[in-house]
Amino acid sequence: MASSDIGLLYGAFHLLRLQQTGASCQALNIEEAPAYDLRILDHWDNPDGTIERGFAGSSIFWSKNDRERIREYARANASVGINGAVLNNVNAKPQTLSSETLTWVRTVADILRPYGIRVFLSVNFASPMRLGGLPTADPLDKAVVYWWEKKVEEIYRLVPDFGGFLVKANSEGEPGPCDYGRSHAQGANMLARVLKPHKGIVMWRTFVYSPNDEDRAKQAYKEFMPLDGKFLDNVILQIKNGPIDFQPREPYSPLFTALKTTPMMVELQVTQEYLGAANHLAFLAPMWSEFFSLVEPQSLRAIAGVANVGDDRNWCGHHFAQANWYAFGRLAWNPRLTPETIACEWLSQTFTTDTRFVRPMTELMVQSHETVVNYMMPLGLHHLFASGHHYGPQPWFTAPGMRSDWTPPYYHRSDARGLGFDRTRRGSDAVSQYPEELATQYDDIQTCPERYLLWFHHVPWDHRMQSGRTLWDELCHRYADGVAGARRMLATWDGMEPYIDAKRFADVQRKLRIQVRDAEWWRDACLLYFQTFSGRPIPADMEHPVHNLDEMMQFRLDISNYENPVGGYSR
Amino acid sequence: MASSDIGLLYGAFHLLRLQQTGASCQALNIEEAPAYDLRILDHWDNPDGTIERGFAGSSIFWSKNDRERIREYARANASVGINGAVLNNVNAKPQTLSSETLTWVRTVADILRPYGIRVFLSVNFASPMRLGGLPTADPLDKAVVYWWEKKVEEIYRLVPDFGGFLVKANSEGEPGPCDYGRSHAQGANMLARVLKPHKGIVMWRTFVYSPNDEDRAKQAYKEFMPLDGKFLDNVILQIKNGPIDFQPREPYSPLFTALKTTPMMVELQVTQEYLGAANHLAFLAPMWSEFFSLVEPQSLRAIAGVANVGDDRNWCGHHFAQANWYAFGRLAWNPRLTPETIACEWLSQTFTTDTRFVRPMTELMVQSHETVVNYMMPLGLHHLFASGHHYGPQPWFTAPGMRSDWTPPYYHRSDARGLGFDRTRRGSDAVSQYPEELATQYDDIQTCPERYLLWFHHVPWDHRMQSGRTLWDELCHRYADGVAGARRMLATWDGMEPYIDAKRFADVQRKLRIQVRDAEWWRDACLLYFQTFSGRPIPADMEHPVHNLDEMMQFRLDISNYENPVGGYSR
Repeated sequence: MASSDIGLLYGAFHLLRLQQTGASCQALNIEEAPAYDLRILDHWDNPDGTIERGFAGSSIFWSKNDRERIREYARANASVGINGAVLNNVNAKPQTLSSETLTWVRTVADILRPYGIRVFLSVNFASPMRLGGLPTADPLDKAVVYWWEKKVEEIYRLVPDFGGFLVKANSEGEPGPCDYGRSHAQGANMLARVLKPHKGIVMWRTFVYSPNDEDRAKQAYKEFMPLDGKFLDNVILQIKNGPIDFQPREPYSPLFTALKTTPMMVELQVTQEYLGAANHLAFLAPMWSEFFSLVEPQSLRAIAGVANVGDDRNWCGHHFAQANWYAFGRLAWNPRLTPETIACEWLSQTFTTDTRFVRPMTELMVQSHETVVNYMMPLGLHHLFASGHHYGPQPWFTAPGMRSDWTPPYYHRSDARGLGFDRTRRGSDAVSQYPEELATQYDDIQTCPERYLLWFHHVPWDHRMQSGRTLWDELCHRYADGVAGARRMLATWDGMEPYIDAKRFADVQRKLRIQVRDAEWWRDACLLYFQTFSGRPIPADMEHPVHNLDEMMQFRLDISNYENPVGGYSR
Repeated sequence: MASSDIGLLYGAFHLLRLQQTGASCQALNIEEAPAYDLRILDHWDNPDGTIERGFAGSSIFWSKNDRERIREYARANASVGINGAVLNNVNAKPQTLSSETLTWVRTVADILRPYGIRVFLSVNFASPMRLGGLPTADPLDKAVVYWWEKKVEEIYRLVPDFGGFLVKANSEGEPGPCDYGRSHAQGANMLARVLKPHKGIVMWRTFVYSPNDEDRAKQAYKEFMPLDGKFLDNVILQIKNGPIDFQPREPYSPLFTALKTTPMMVELQVTQEYLGAANHLAFLAPMWSEFFSLVEPQSLRAIAGVANVGDDRNWCGHHFAQANWYAFGRLAWNPRLTPETIACEWLSQTFTTDTRFVRPMTELMVQSHETVVNYMMPLGLHHLFASGHHYGPQPWFTAPGMRSDWTPPYYHRSDARGLGFDRTRRGSDAVSQYPEELATQYDDIQTCPERYLLWFHHVPWDHRMQSGRTLWDELCHRYADGVAGARRMLATWDGMEPYIDAKRFADVQRKLRIQVRDAEWWRDACLLYFQTFSGRPIPADMEHPVHNLDEMMQFRLDISNYENPVGGYSR
C-alpha cells in the first residue's frame, strides 16, 4: 500500500530488489517509509559539461543533451530512493538562471518528473548584477528582491514543481550577502521569502572559512551559531558531515549538535574527491554510518550527497563507485541500514547472488574505507593531499603567499616533538564546540578515540598508544596495515574471477592494482616525510618504504580537478 | 715467508686484512698459497671508453688515461690476490694491436707490474687482415703466421712480461679459424706457437653456438669435445661456468667434467649483466661456491672473472658490487672459502667490525643471490631477460627474423601443458653430456634438483613439487619469496643506519628500494605472462601482481648495454 503514486514506484523497485537479491540479504520487510522527505543528489556539473571532482566523464545534463541517458539516470536514481537533483555546481555561474538555460532545465525536469525526482538549481548570489545588470546584489535592496521574484516566477512557469535553490555564499570566493554587510540569514531569508509562495526551499551551505588565524575547523560554527533561529522555515542549512572538507575521516561537524532551532541537512560526498577518485575502491556506507552513530538521523530535516555520476558507460568511473551512489540512496531512505546489508544488496543486484562471491566481497567492501583511511590518513590525520587534484599525498606542500589553511602542514603540524593539531582547550579549543561530554572525552589524550587523536591533539612521538606502541611506531603500522589491506582486496578480487564476467573482472582488477601501488606511494610519502620530524626508524617488523622522498617530492600529477588519473599516482 | 717478492706483498695485504677484520672472521692462518697461478680479471672495455656490461661509468684504461686511478686499481686488485688483467673487451677491435695502442698498453703494464699484475689482451682473429692488410687471416697461411710473429715480438719489446691473448673466435659474429675451414684447435695452436717463445699463453673461449636447431646448451660441448687433446700446452680453454650465458643460476658447463686432457679455466662473471646490473644487491660467492661444489677446483688450470670495474668513485656502481670483485679474488686464491667468511671479511674491512652490523649483513649477503634467483628465474628458469640490456623481464620477447635462441620463449618453452626446456634423454639429451651418475639424476624429474628442474625438464603445471604444491603454485610462491627477500634486505639495511656513514647508507638504501620495486616487476611480468599458458589462479595466500601485463609488455627501457638504469626497471 502506498500513500502516493511515487510510493508505488518505490514499492516496485523494492520488490525488484528483493527478487534480485533473493533471500540472501534481508528478511522480507514490507513496511517501508523514508527517513527524509528530501533525498537529494547535488551535481557539481558545470555549464561547459565538466564536473568538478567528477571522475566519470562529462555531465549527463550539460554536455550532450542525451535525453535517453537522463531518463536512465532518473530510473536508477528513483530505484535507490532519491527524489531530488541539484543540476549544477555549487560554484554556480550566473548564466544558470538565463532564460535559455531554464528552458533546458524544464526539459530535464520533464524527464525526471515521472520518476519522482524534483529539480533544484545552485544559484550565484550575484546573479541580479551579473545576469540582471543591477548595480548590487544586496539582499535588502528592493530592486534585487524584485529581480529574484521575477526570476523565480519564470522558473515556476517552466517547472511548476521546482524544488528550490542551493547556495554557496561567501565561501571560497563566491559572492554572498556578507559582501553588503548582511548576514547569511538575511541572504538566505530573502531567497526563502521569494520562493515561499511557490513552495520552494533554500538549502544554504555552511561551508565557509575565512583566511584568518582562527582554526578552520571552528569557523562554520562561529559564523552560523549566532544565527540559530534567525532563518525562515523554508531555509535548511546544508552542513558537510565534518568540520573541514570531506576528508577520509572526520569527526562530525559540531553544528549538528549545537544548532537548536534551525533546520539542518547533511551534505555527504558520494564522489571520491579525497578517497582515490575513480581508482580506489572505498565503500562509504561505513563512513556515513559512523556519522549517523554520532548525529541522530532525526535531528536532520533532509540529506544531500555530492554525486559521482558522469556519462561514462558505467556511470561512476569505477564499477564499485556505483555502490556509493546506491548506498547514499539507501541510507537516505533508512540511515540505520548496516553497511553489510547495503553491500550485500548491491553486490547481489550488480554481479551475482552466488554466496562464494557475495560473502567475501561484502567483507571486502565493508573493510575498504578503513583500509583507505589507514594508507592515506590514519589516527585523525587530515588534508595531506596534493594541491589541486586532491588525489595523491603531498604532506609537505606549501606555496609562497598561499593561505596556510590550503596547505597540509597547517593540518598535521608535524614537528620534532610530535604530530597533530592541538584543538584541545589548551589549543584552538575546537573541542568546546561539542556537547560537554564529548568535549571532555575529545579533550583528554587518554580518552580521545584514536581514530580522531591527531585531529584533536598534538601528540608526542613517544606517546604510548593503546597497542602499546609509540605514536611513531603505531603510525608506521597503520600505514602498513593500509597497504596490506589494499593487497588483500586485490587478492580477494582475483579469486572472484570464476563468478563474474571477464570485462568487469579485468576493469576492477586494474583499478585495484592501481590502488595497491598508490597505497604504497601514500605510505612512503607520509612516513618518509614525517620521519624527517620524528627522527625515528621505521619499525623492523614491517615492510619498509620503497620510494625515495626526494623523488616523491618532485613528482607532479598533471591533471585538472575534473579528471581521474588513468594510471594512478605512483611512479 | 714468501717464495717471491709478490708473495711478500700478498702477505702484507693478508696481514692488513686480519688487522681490519679483527679476530671476528677467521682464525689466524699464516700458511697461504693460491689455488691457481693465474687469477685474471677480464675487462670488457672498449677503445672508446665504454664497457660492455659495465655499470660503473667509463673504462679506467681507455677513457681518461688517469694513471693514478690505474695504480689504485692495481693496489686493490693485488690486495684481493688477482695477478692478471685482460685490458680490453673479448669483442676485440683490430686496433687493439696497433703500435699506438700498444704504446699505451706498455704504460699500463708498467703501472700494474709493481703490484704483481700482468697484462693480457683480447685479440681479433682477423687482425692480420683488418690491421695488417693481408688478404686472409687463415691460421695456416704463412703470411698470417709471420704477421702474428712480428706483432708478438713488438708486444714483448714493449711489455716483456706480457701474459698472452684472450680470444673470442667464431662466436656471435666475431671472426675465427672456422671462417677458413680450420678448427678452433688450429686457430688457437697457431697463436700459441707464436707466443710460446715469449712464455705467453692463449686463453681460447668456448662460448660458441650456431644458429641451428641444436639445443644451445649442448653446442660448446659438441664443438670442443672432438678437439680434446689437440691443443698445445700453452692453450687454456676458457669456459663460462654454465652452458648458456651467466644466468642467475645455471648447472655447470658439462665441458668441465668431459674434457680429459685439455687445460681449462673457468670464466665467471663478476659484473652483474644478468643480476640487476649496479642496482641489485646480489652477492655472488654462493653462486661460485655452488659451481665449485660440482666442479673440482683442481681440475682447472686457472680462473678468470669478467670485471665490474669502472671509473665511478665507488669503482663498481653499487657499493655492494665491490664485494663481488673481492669475492672473486678471494675464491681465485682459495675456492674453498665459504661465502660467509668472504662476506664477513669484506663487510668488516669496508664498513665496520661492529657485530651488530656484520652479523645481519653477512646473513643478508649470503642469502641475496637466492633471493635474486627467486624473483627473477626460480626453479631452473633462464634467459627471461629483456632483449639487449638484459636488465628487466621480457619473457614474451620475440622479434621477426631473430634467431630463436636469442629470445626467452626458446628457453622457457611455456605452453598449456607446462613449463621448461626438455633436455632429458627424450628431449634434447643435453643431460647425456654430464657424467653418467649426474645425467641419470638430472634426467629423472623425481631426482633432478628443483633448482635445475625447468632447465632440464618440461614440467606439467600440476606436477607435484617437494613442497606438496603444484608446479604453478610453487612457481608463484618462489616469486613471492623473492619479493619478500628483497623487502627483508631493505628492512635489514634500514636498521644499519646507526653503524655506518650517512652517504653510503643512503646510496645503498636507494638501490635496495629499486631492487624491491624491480622484484615486484619481475614477479608480475613473469607470473602474469606464464599465467596466460597455465590458466591457473595466483594462489590466494600470497600477494597478487600489482602491474598489468599489457602495460608491462609495452614497456621499453631505453638504455644501451653500457649503462646502469638509474631508476631501475619498474614503472
